[in-house]
Amino acid sequence: MDSLEEFRHYRERMNTRILSSQNIGIKRFFALDSRAYEKGALDPKTKELLGLVASTVLRCNDCVTYHIIRCVQEAVSDDELLEALNVALIVGGSITIPHIRRAIDVLDQCREKQKKHEPVEI
Amino acid sequence: MDSLEEFRHYRERMNTRILSSQNIGIKRFFALDSRAYEKGALDPKTKELLGLVASTVLRCNDCVTYHIIRCVQEAVSDDELLEALNVALIVGGSITIPHIRRAIDVLDQCREKQKKHEPVEI
Amino acid sequence: MDSLEEFRHYRERMNTRILSSQNIGIKRFFALDSRAYEKGALDPKTKELLGLVASTVLRCNDCVTYHIIRCVQEAVSDDELLEALNVALIVGGSITIPHIRRAIDVLDQCREKQKKHEPVEI
Amino acid sequence: MDSLEEFRHYRERMNTRILSSQNIGIKRFFALDSRAYEKGALDPKTKELLGLVASTVLRCNDCVTYHIIRCVQEAVSDDELLEALNVALIVGGSITIPHIRRAIDVLDQCREKQKKHEPVEI
Amino acid sequence: MDSLEEFRHYRERMNTRILSSQNIGIKRFFALDSRAYEKGALDPKTKELLGLVASTVLRCNDCVTYHIIRCVQEAVSDDELLEALNVALIVGGSITIPHIRRAIDVLDQCREKQKKHEPVEI
Amino acid sequence: MDSLEEFRHYRERMNTRILSSQNIGIKRFFALDSRAYEKGALDPKTKELLGLVASTVLRCNDCVTYHIIRCVQEAVSDDELLEALNVALIVGGSITIPHIRRAIDVLDQCREKQKKHEPVEI
Repeated sequence: MDSLEEFRHYRERMNTRILSSQNIGIKRFFALDSRAYEKGALDPKTKELLGLVASTVLRCNDCVTYHIIRCVQEAVSDDELLEALNVALIVGGSITIPHIRRAIDVLDQCREKQKKHEPVEI
Repeated sequence: MDSLEEFRHYRERMNTRILSSQNIGIKRFFALDSRAYEKGALDPKTKELLGLVASTVLRCNDCVTYHIIRCVQEAVSDDELLEALNVALIVGGSITIPHIRRAIDVLDQCREKQKKHEPVEI
Repeated sequence: MDSLEEFRHYRERMNTRILSSQNIGIKRFFALDSRAYEKGALDPKTKELLGLVASTVLRCNDCVTYHIIRCVQEAVSDDELLEALNVALIVGGSITIPHIRRAIDVLDQCREKQKKHEPVEI
Repeated sequence: MDSLEEFRHYRERMNTRILSSQNIGIKRFFALDSRAYEKGALDPKTKELLGLVASTVLRCNDCVTYHIIRCVQEAVSDDELLEALNVALIVGGSITIPHIRRAIDVLDQCREKQKKHEPVEI
Repeated sequence: MDSLEEFRHYRERMNTRILSSQNIGIKRFFALDSRAYEKGALDPKTKELLGLVASTVLRCNDCVTYHIIRCVQEAVSDDELLEALNVALIVGGSITIPHIRRAIDVLDQCREKQKKHEPVEI
Repeated sequence: MDSLEEFRHYRERMNTRILSSQNIGIKRFFALDSRAYEKGALDPKTKELLGLVASTVLRCNDCVTYHIIRCVQEAVSDDELLEALNVALIVGGSITIPHIRRAIDVLDQCREKQKKHEPVEI
């Protein structure tokens, strides 16, 4: 299983690479993507939970990893995360289970960091 | 476009038909499905928004219709709904647009009913 | 809801239209598609159940309609169909429910025809 | 089957409705969506074929309808369209067949209009 | 490529972890999931083939691995497995090929174990 | 991240293994798959771009890797590839981003080989 650090570095390196390209459409999409989770009528915590459930039912491990980290940063509790993942499991079925395993695995790694007073970074 | 009444009657009739069958697995799944949206660590409003976003990115019109009606019953505002649909649009792409059209269409029908002091039922 | 006759006529008309085109790749795909369900190491009944479950988890109403009719022709019982649909429901989640409603609706129409000693055709 | 006129009017009415909302994210997404198909290193004809194949493998009838109309406007030939649909069929499998039927149905309606010297509009 | 042992240990460890949580919905889903494949009107062999085809068209490598192992335990023959995978390939298209490679790879590892009279475990 | 060599060897080994089986349906599908990208009314370059976009929106890393290599062999430019990937991003949403990272990563590896006058092989 990829470590969170490996994930973060690859993600960061490739995003920098993609945004250095000349394609204006892709750059603007990345900007819109960031803004969609900013505070508005809904708070960032709710929006990250929406992103997590969407990522889980669409079965994207990298996206699940990202949103679990963001949820931890937004102080979502374990019970709240499990209820959100339960909605994803019911909507998306057993095919989402490998991604729910991944979500819990990442969550455990984040909680471990918090216990050691290490930052949980994306 | 199906009217909300037609949708509700077909859904109700077929659910009754399915639950009258002898398959215990399907019945239990339906029960688990209902419980996933009940109040727990997360409130029903947040859970319905999770269900709406999951339904939109998985592109299921009947599910979108159901969760919009439930969101309206849970007093979600138009701004909150649009922000949730924007998350779905960013995550799921332009392929979700026909379902976002459907969501807004159903929302408008619900608001129309509310203006006339008619109940918004599922 | 489309009647089974309307479905069959549209499907037949468009298949004839597509196969009258000059694209050899599409024609060969249609031939391979038919052969995949013919008797081999697995019998047609099992293969139609595989096609039904695949169609349900991929959420294709036309494909669900087709395979329910074929299952009825292969003398699959109601209990067997419900167990296959339960596997699809568990694997694919609540998002498959509208297609399970459709499957049962088509099944009921087929059983109605059988009671009246009418042929169940595709 | 919805007529092309019905499709166009519903699409136009709902897009106007959605863009009249206050959600800036959704509006910007719609703008990015339009620009993605404009002439650049690739010509609009190739981009519409890309949009058509993406829509077919993701199995979105409204999107298939839209891109077939746009392909006809960009003077894509029947042979070119069939080869693009064949790629979609090979990549996406028999589950795309109902959408390939829809694509050919819309194509035939467009060619009929062209024979009568009527405009093919989106 | 993950070894089957690595897969089994990670799966087991994370399932234990998930089932130790306080979320009753997730626990009940896991129970329903197991029961869906138990003997009923259909035998476990047919149900595992249904699970395999569903997993292949939904393109979930962990699920494909699991159901291939279970099929081998249920004494499904190579010819039967290939015909089931052929149905998945036709329904789901070339996009399933990487998962069919995975399925055959796991199958070969299971047959190798059987030749050495080692148990094929999940 | 798998190296391109590892990918190529695994793909080649498993394809040989699959084609050595007795299943005629699978063999014919593989033949049809190859032919779909051969020169016809559309040139191989356009067809590979169609395959790339289909693979990206369906989120299959192995397929994205394959079609990027083929696009490089067909002399598609970086700007053309980015525009095709932008269409995939708009149609498929942020959920495709991990696969767009993969696509650019593979592209960079191919360009590196070309700079060293090494062959870009599949």
